[in-house]
Amino acid sequence: MSNSLGRRFKITLFGESHGRCVGVVVEGCPPGLEVREELIQAELDKRKPGGEAFSTPRLEEDKVEILSGVFNGRTTGAPICMVVWNRKQDSTPYEKLKWTPRPGHADYPAYVKYRGFHDYRGGGIFSARLMVGVVAAGALAKQILREKEIDVLAHVVEIGGIGIGRTPSIEEIREKTYKSALRCVDEEASLKMQHKIEEAKREGDSLGGIVECLALNLPAGLGDPLFNALDADLAHALFCIPAVKGVEFGAGFKAARMKGSENNDPYTVENGRIVTLTNNAGGVLGGMSTGMPLIVRVAFKPPSSIAKPQQTVNLKTMKPTEIKVEGKHDVCFVPRAVPIVEAMVACVLADHLLLGQL
Amino acid sequence: MSNSLGRRFKITLFGESHGRCVGVVVEGCPPGLEVREELIQAELDKRKPGGEAFSTPRLEEDKVEILSGVFNGRTTGAPICMVVWNRKQDSTPYEKLKWTPRPGHADYPAYVKYRGFHDYRGGGIFSARLMVGVVAAGALAKQILREKEIDVLAHVVEIGGIGIGRTPSIEEIREKTYKSALRCVDEEASLKMQHKIEEAKREGDSLGGIVECLALNLPAGLGDPLFNALDADLAHALFCIPAVKGVEFGAGFKAARMKGSENNDPYTVENGRIVTLTNNAGGVLGGMSTGMPLIVRVAFKPPSSIAKPQQTVNLKTMKPTEIKVEGKHDVCFVPRAVPIVEAMVACVLADHLLLGQL
Amino acid sequence: MSNSLGRRFKITLFGESHGRCVGVVVEGCPPGLEVREELIQAELDKRKPGGEAFSTPRLEEDKVEILSGVFNGRTTGAPICMVVWNRKQDSTPYEKLKWTPRPGHADYPAYVKYRGFHDYRGGGIFSARLMVGVVAAGALAKQILREKEIDVLAHVVEIGGIGIGRTPSIEEIREKTYKSALRCVDEEASLKMQHKIEEAKREGDSLGGIVECLALNLPAGLGDPLFNALDADLAHALFCIPAVKGVEFGAGFKAARMKGSENNDPYTVENGRIVTLTNNAGGVLGGMSTGMPLIVRVAFKPPSSIAKPQQTVNLKTMKPTEIKVEGKHDVCFVPRAVPIVEAMVACVLADHLLLGQL
Amino acid sequence: MSNSLGRRFKITLFGESHGRCVGVVVEGCPPGLEVREELIQAELDKRKPGGEAFSTPRLEEDKVEILSGVFNGRTTGAPICMVVWNRKQDSTPYEKLKWTPRPGHADYPAYVKYRGFHDYRGGGIFSARLMVGVVAAGALAKQILREKEIDVLAHVVEIGGIGIGRTPSIEEIREKTYKSALRCVDEEASLKMQHKIEEAKREGDSLGGIVECLALNLPAGLGDPLFNALDADLAHALFCIPAVKGVEFGAGFKAARMKGSENNDPYTVENGRIVTLTNNAGGVLGGMSTGMPLIVRVAFKPPSSIAKPQQTVNLKTMKPTEIKVEGKHDVCFVPRAVPIVEAMVACVLADHLLLGQL
Repeated sequence: MSNSLGRRFKITLFGESHGRCVGVVVEGCPPGLEVREELIQAELDKRKPGGEAFSTPRLEEDKVEILSGVFNGRTTGAPICMVVWNRKQDSTPYEKLKWTPRPGHADYPAYVKYRGFHDYRGGGIFSARLMVGVVAAGALAKQILREKEIDVLAHVVEIGGIGIGRTPSIEEIREKTYKSALRCVDEEASLKMQHKIEEAKREGDSLGGIVECLALNLPAGLGDPLFNALDADLAHALFCIPAVKGVEFGAGFKAARMKGSENNDPYTVENGRIVTLTNNAGGVLGGMSTGMPLIVRVAFKPPSSIAKPQQTVNLKTMKPTEIKVEGKHDVCFVPRAVPIVEAMVACVLADHLLLGQL
Repeated sequence: MSNSLGRRFKITLFGESHGRCVGVVVEGCPPGLEVREELIQAELDKRKPGGEAFSTPRLEEDKVEILSGVFNGRTTGAPICMVVWNRKQDSTPYEKLKWTPRPGHADYPAYVKYRGFHDYRGGGIFSARLMVGVVAAGALAKQILREKEIDVLAHVVEIGGIGIGRTPSIEEIREKTYKSALRCVDEEASLKMQHKIEEAKREGDSLGGIVECLALNLPAGLGDPLFNALDADLAHALFCIPAVKGVEFGAGFKAARMKGSENNDPYTVENGRIVTLTNNAGGVLGGMSTGMPLIVRVAFKPPSSIAKPQQTVNLKTMKPTEIKVEGKHDVCFVPRAVPIVEAMVACVLADHLLLGQL
Repeated sequence: MSNSLGRRFKITLFGESHGRCVGVVVEGCPPGLEVREELIQAELDKRKPGGEAFSTPRLEEDKVEILSGVFNGRTTGAPICMVVWNRKQDSTPYEKLKWTPRPGHADYPAYVKYRGFHDYRGGGIFSARLMVGVVAAGALAKQILREKEIDVLAHVVEIGGIGIGRTPSIEEIREKTYKSALRCVDEEASLKMQHKIEEAKREGDSLGGIVECLALNLPAGLGDPLFNALDADLAHALFCIPAVKGVEFGAGFKAARMKGSENNDPYTVENGRIVTLTNNAGGVLGGMSTGMPLIVRVAFKPPSSIAKPQQTVNLKTMKPTEIKVEGKHDVCFVPRAVPIVEAMVACVLADHLLLGQL
Repeated sequence: MSNSLGRRFKITLFGESHGRCVGVVVEGCPPGLEVREELIQAELDKRKPGGEAFSTPRLEEDKVEILSGVFNGRTTGAPICMVVWNRKQDSTPYEKLKWTPRPGHADYPAYVKYRGFHDYRGGGIFSARLMVGVVAAGALAKQILREKEIDVLAHVVEIGGIGIGRTPSIEEIREKTYKSALRCVDEEASLKMQHKIEEAKREGDSLGGIVECLALNLPAGLGDPLFNALDADLAHALFCIPAVKGVEFGAGFKAARMKGSENNDPYTVENGRIVTLTNNAGGVLGGMSTGMPLIVRVAFKPPSSIAKPQQTVNLKTMKPTEIKVEGKHDVCFVPRAVPIVEAMVACVLADHLLLGQL
């Protein structure tokens, strides 16, 4: 029904995978913010297919166009509409799939919900391509955060069961993530992931993984208890990314296995600032930021579109049948999800930051 | 800032742990729904401390009182305000803690956010006691769901690292959960959990765990893609429960380690209805319900209040100091969280159900 | 469905005329605000029936009780729940009216909407008594405004067609309004209004009128163009007061008869501040405050409950019938509406003020 | 901050008068609705300058383009983005006005609010041109209403103080409004209005007026008491149209001068349906529709841009100065406001209709 995120920094998405465009309307951006199309473009470029091995060989030239809200290179305070025009796509393969929902895809519930009227071409509104609008909005959010020296950094910590096996430094994440095709700072792990991806590709299969995101220099006290908890708002936004199946903060699911004495983060004073010695909380307590780095991890399932034959049902005949999803699809979506996770986190943080203290 | 949940079935919480009361205003309940105070009371009773071993020996007699919105035993369509009056509590121990934030608690960010004006007694608004309002609202939500034969069932699947180690049947969960003091259907595991809890108690420590929740008979197509995804709304609500650090649907974090061919749930037809052979999706795809059971797991960290000495900082002197959190506290909150998880899930589902199809 | 007003300073009403209580939950009140029950009480007392002649002789002792959100005499930042308990009311007269909707009342559409389940006693949720919650919330809003030296002043400018016939000074309004039983600063007009009211009372009839409200010292730039225009938000709030049929700003409907050269307010500089020589705009242009006094006028229809016989329909037999509305009813509600109008305006202004500049 | 209207049928505007485009994102349109660009275009054409005499001679060819949410000629249930590209406009005259706010315009509060960063060309976001998005959205809303046989009809009842002086029949309004250049069904009055407009034009002045809007065949029970009252939501939407200074329902401000016995609408039964003999309520009681025609009147001030010299202040020097607003401006905006009023009313009614009964 509603597809807006945020209360003060608010984004509204529109568009379809094989329609005219994908886009976003951003409301609540303060006036006077310098907006350079190339900065937004740079963020969009981060989610482009990065390497032949793990990703789709489609040619995507996602050029952002700003339609409103920017004047003389600065935000005016008015809603900012940004679009990326779609290139002509071949929608023929989707005609075949119209009556045979792909396992793991939104096809079947969408068919029920929209009574068959939805745009099924390329996944329509359910396509991860809609995240283009989120990334564009996130570029603005990041700029708002940057003015407060808040940084949002995501990176891949696991693909196909292969984890990075160590905690990289902030500097490492900042420097290496986008230099790596897999958005993974650990070269050894990257190599193994790469092999795993190639193997899955050969098998006509796909792989999932985990993206970790940090937000640095957050002030303490962002977010509210009860229903506008910072972690709750972040989780909400992150679960809106296609293929996300789990979200955890700090020690996350591991915290459920720790004792209170292990999990509680002791306080100390460092350079006149109250900090914690550990950060199992992941920077959020009682729905509010603690001032320590925010740490959130997001689990992505493997892409549903695989070349292997799968069992489905023909919606017209209501008989079981088999499908093979043709076309060029990502073997592993996780590296491309990194800038999306960053953008979602940035949007939520900008919203809370602009809402300000109570 | 805002503490409301939901758009059509909307709940607004108020109250404090050691204040006059805790309560809730429920808006959007359809008129004509039979409301029996004893049914709401029965839900509230489920979150009472159940056994000496794992929980606080405080006497709590949470009697719900309906202040508005019900006439001749039925909802009128007007807002329903329900309160539970607090018994006189001893707030003395909290005076000591005022300037020494407890590790793992909301104390420190609350102090920053509210500039020292928050009610720190018994955790104030940050106390899990606020969930009384959620459980009361959930009782109404469950009744709305029951009219569509939708059931919401939660149970404990892990405490202190001890898991139930098997997938219990729906019937088992329905029958056994609330007969078990630990809200765990597996007797063997329960016994081990019980020992673990007693051990933690002796050590002045605390334990976390995992609650699983199922929703049965949901129609396909509830929820929307983009920003009102059913899973995103559920995750948002669940992260608003104190101490939650992770949420996952279906295979969840495990899905990140599966191949597409393993994770995709094949479709088939059963009694003229389209179903999936597996349910790794946990009943939700593309932000919409699939018609299969909704499965969500919620990770709770161990309670922060422990008897063991912990390091903190005195906010006045800005010097490190040590505290021991006195008073009677839950060693393990997880069993008491079971009806809260059910209530949150029920509220979100009732909201989406009443919003109806597009 | 939703009964909340405001985005940042948000109020949620509950209660019924003859139910347990009427009340409000106020969210978004900044922490540290001094709250004195007697100040809130003083506002509530302003809407009490003031004189035998024009108002109901019912005994109302509306004592406000603060249930949450206030600690040590100050707001904590948590939701503030306030209730006024209802005295035992005689609901017998309403049984007769159950199937015969009173002309001009909400009875008939309520019967359709709520399918007969609504609480019809004393008007239930449709009663102006619900405005008690608004006035209580308004008392907090006024305090937020007072910190910025913003004043909200309403007064009666017309009753039963008798207008005050002159523009009183701000000082006069401030000093005299609440000293007048009719909340009208002009003594001569008051006298005529009083006679008109007595006449209507003798005839078993009722009278409407117009309330004017000013807000002083507003900064320029509050409110937004498009859909959060300050005037639009104010109009929305004011039309939520029972019996309001018209709202106009500045010259209002008269502006429709003016030429641009007459209506445009010329700018000048006064004490280094930009002001306008006239204020036909009523302090709002393009949805934003201009810094000049906000001026809004609210038209109230006469109370629907009159002793004269009226034609209605029996909902069971669907046959026309006649009713006389018995009981003690206000002949003219307008003087009692003055603090309600102030409260609504204060709530909207506090909301916009806390939202702050873009 | 937020520029969305509606909860279920939600519209978000963007664009600027002299920017790239004006547009709207419509959310909540049910899937399967037939969308013909020419129907939307027909609505847009109604707000085109209709006659040389009263309106701007600018050439406007507002061709709507649907960017998303429509597939195979039908709505998909996804957000519908529509844009109208702006023709190249001459923004030179606005450079002169940058530092001299035009009396009656949003210039000054906008300058304060946006700290000078707003797009001042052609009024930027404050321009009535933004209403193009409302009219486009209204075309969809009207179609939703038409399926329930609900009609929304607006017409001019007063310009420059000249009223139509009689109550035209519904049929007359339906037939004649858009055949009249002034959108006024009374030919005699139209002629006088026309002369008045020509006179104002000669004087370099402008005129305001009043638009009346009716909605027919509404079911009883739409809207809610308290804060989602139908009249309050309509008033909110209507005050968001530039230049609106007053809104009244049914007898409106006149009701304030009536006695209860005159104003109350007696009930009767007609063809088995409950109706009222009069309609002073304007079809709304207690915030809910009564099933009688909804009647709302909207007062427009005269356009602020006039050729006559006016006094203002130079924002840089803070000295009084004089301006003449050059360029081609509407002498009277009221006829062009007719389809905008219809569209706003249609959007609010569609929203309430889709929200459905409680």
